[in-house]
Amino acid sequence: MTARNAFYAQSGGVTAVINATACGLIETARRYPERIGKVFAGRDGILGALTEELIDTSLESDADIARLRHTPGGAFGSCRYKLKSLDEHRAQYERLIEVFRAHDIGYFFYNGGNDSMDTAWKVAQMAEAMGLPLVSVGIPKTVDNDLAVTDNSPGFGSVAKYVATSMREAGYDVASMARTSTQIFVLEVMGRHAGWITAACGLAAEAEGEAPHLLLFPEIPFAPEAFLARVAECVARHGYCAIAVSEGLRDATGRLMADMGSRDAFGHAQLGGVGQVIAQLIKDRLGYKYHWALADYLQRSARHIASRTDLEQAYAVGAKAVELALAGQNAVLPVIRRLSDAPYAWDIGVAALGDVANVEKQMPREFIRSDGFHITPACRRYLQPLIEGEAIPPFRNGLPDYVRLKNRLVAKQLPPFPL
Amino acid sequence: MTARNAFYAQSGGVTAVINATACGLIETARRYPERIGKVFAGRDGILGALTEELIDTSLESDADIARLRHTPGGAFGSCRYKLKSLDEHRAQYERLIEVFRAHDIGYFFYNGGNDSMDTAWKVAQMAEAMGLPLVSVGIPKTVDNDLAVTDNSPGFGSVAKYVATSMREAGYDVASMARTSTQIFVLEVMGRHAGWITAACGLAAEAEGEAPHLLLFPEIPFAPEAFLARVAECVARHGYCAIAVSEGLRDATGRLMADMGSRDAFGHAQLGGVGQVIAQLIKDRLGYKYHWALADYLQRSARHIASRTDLEQAYAVGAKAVELALAGQNAVLPVIRRLSDAPYAWDIGVAALGDVANVEKQMPREFIRSDGFHITPACRRYLQPLIEGEAIPPFRNGLPDYVRLKNRLVAKQLPPFPL
Repeated sequence: MTARNAFYAQSGGVTAVINATACGLIETARRYPERIGKVFAGRDGILGALTEELIDTSLESDADIARLRHTPGGAFGSCRYKLKSLDEHRAQYERLIEVFRAHDIGYFFYNGGNDSMDTAWKVAQMAEAMGLPLVSVGIPKTVDNDLAVTDNSPGFGSVAKYVATSMREAGYDVASMARTSTQIFVLEVMGRHAGWITAACGLAAEAEGEAPHLLLFPEIPFAPEAFLARVAECVARHGYCAIAVSEGLRDATGRLMADMGSRDAFGHAQLGGVGQVIAQLIKDRLGYKYHWALADYLQRSARHIASRTDLEQAYAVGAKAVELALAGQNAVLPVIRRLSDAPYAWDIGVAALGDVANVEKQMPREFIRSDGFHITPACRRYLQPLIEGEAIPPFRNGLPDYVRLKNRLVAKQLPPFPL
Repeated sequence: MTARNAFYAQSGGVTAVINATACGLIETARRYPERIGKVFAGRDGILGALTEELIDTSLESDADIARLRHTPGGAFGSCRYKLKSLDEHRAQYERLIEVFRAHDIGYFFYNGGNDSMDTAWKVAQMAEAMGLPLVSVGIPKTVDNDLAVTDNSPGFGSVAKYVATSMREAGYDVASMARTSTQIFVLEVMGRHAGWITAACGLAAEAEGEAPHLLLFPEIPFAPEAFLARVAECVARHGYCAIAVSEGLRDATGRLMADMGSRDAFGHAQLGGVGQVIAQLIKDRLGYKYHWALADYLQRSARHIASRTDLEQAYAVGAKAVELALAGQNAVLPVIRRLSDAPYAWDIGVAALGDVANVEKQMPREFIRSDGFHITPACRRYLQPLIEGEAIPPFRNGLPDYVRLKNRLVAKQLPPFPL
């Protein structure tokens, strides 16, 4: 059997551990030189395949590939670029297949969320239609934890650990200051459609009275009066109130709360900043002094406080993807299966791309407390193992020592393709 | 010689390591039972002395006191409450002395910034005037690094390590996304009057092209056209631009840039959010998509990424304060002295409270690059050792395991005092 090349691309928003998946994939592929020639990576994700900008990862040393395991961001670049239906974007799918053919690519690995699983599935169909022998394997990744079938998504556990740690630490701070200064702290976190990251903040509150006291989920329409009553009660009881809010919080009419806040100097509505909207509402109605924080990219790039569980799973799905491809399993993805909660045990299973593509996993209602303002014990049981374990990166000059790869491109074989 | 009690209070904004100072102080005091009876801590800082709310730290176990070393926030509470001149607030100073007399307090330790050093100095004077034998010792603390005489301030090194780490990580993220999504990342940091924290962000850029590319200091009036030209040049060259901005950035007329931004739904100017003002300016003028983050309390409570150097210095000034007091040195504070840059060497010296009180240490102009948009090699030499070394706290259930003390109050001896 002749060795054929592989193509790997990262897709969508990056995570603290997506490079650990790349590491698992490349290290595993290097163990099968008789089957897999070179691993090419798409420069800036799938765009790199369309533009024939293929990074030759065989030029990177084993040591540098190993350093991917502790480096956040997307080492080869990622992109937000969704290939739509075969009918609409047929030329693009055909171009992908042509590029794969020109570079003798027999394995396609696409590392992303719902959209990417859909793309990988379509690529499998198109390759078959065009007569290119290709195994197409998806690899799950998303901080939003909204992928179907897999018990959890690589990337989520590390965000969860970051936001819970940050909330705990800020809670200690504001508790110290509450008597004469700040009574309210609001942390705005990601998760536009699903409240998984907001829920993870709740892990910091292990005992009565601990921060965060209130969580505002995108799944629960914001009820200002009930919320303000809870805030006032919390301040009366504990002296302060710490709140986590999802960027995707909506009012009873379905309007994003982020849209209700401020306008810039030119009168444009300012998107983002729902944390400030909530904090200002409390200030206006209850008079408490507030601080608020917007974690933004810090939460999904915080490799320094990554979850070891998440890291191991991210590596494992990358390694498993190669094994699935070598076993000839086409149009599938590795998924994480939970074998038990405590002690936590997991393994890697296999799912069909078609079962995952374009399905968004919501938070179950039973994970949100009946009043809508916190998580339930069932939610805690689900989330707890995902943040377990530390995976401190190496430090140099007092800062995490992350790798930058050479990222050399392969010579192009084809004429340019208009995007 | 009879043992007398000590009083310790935390003042102003807390830090990731102010409790390490408390730990150094209490552990050292416990080694001299023949000289120091109990260490009382002010509940919510100096307010606890005025209201006679004295926490009896002798009821805390050695193990719990040791855990203060890795716990952020202020373990006994802090406050923003400035005692003014002796003339204006004479009754309050007299009250302090009465409380100290009632509880046989012979040592006063005040852990804070410029204002607190002034208060400690006045307390020393008032005790002498009122015939109470009292040794008053200040202990430096501030994330702003703006205390005079001391080479650096405990608390700053850990913020510096946090913001530089966060900037590096977010830089890796945005670099991955720049081709099709976000080109601009703005991180807003603390430091209303002095740019030390903004400067610390600059440590993340160790080589040409690394994030952050531009720094906006409170010391340098914001020049929009020059800034926008730099941003455009940076995006053209590197594909993206990462920027750190001080909350205290001002325009050429001295107006806070934070005031220039948005108004809430009621038309009130929104303070804070200069990061968004800057990001939106770039979007409006250059069209780049942005993300921004507001670190707020996260930066000063991030004990999980504290600097070991900072931690050791914070502990050392607490321990040294006790030794100074036992040596009868009144109206002084321990200060950090730099003996060499590389290898970094430091020790603890002594300064008079009067030389530190109410003096604000600015960034030297030679620490800011001539164009005003980054730090100089001299600044890097100064800052680098302050973030060196890690001091990872213990973890439990995947999160940092911080202590909550019992904080039991001593029985009051005096009638209430109206604040």
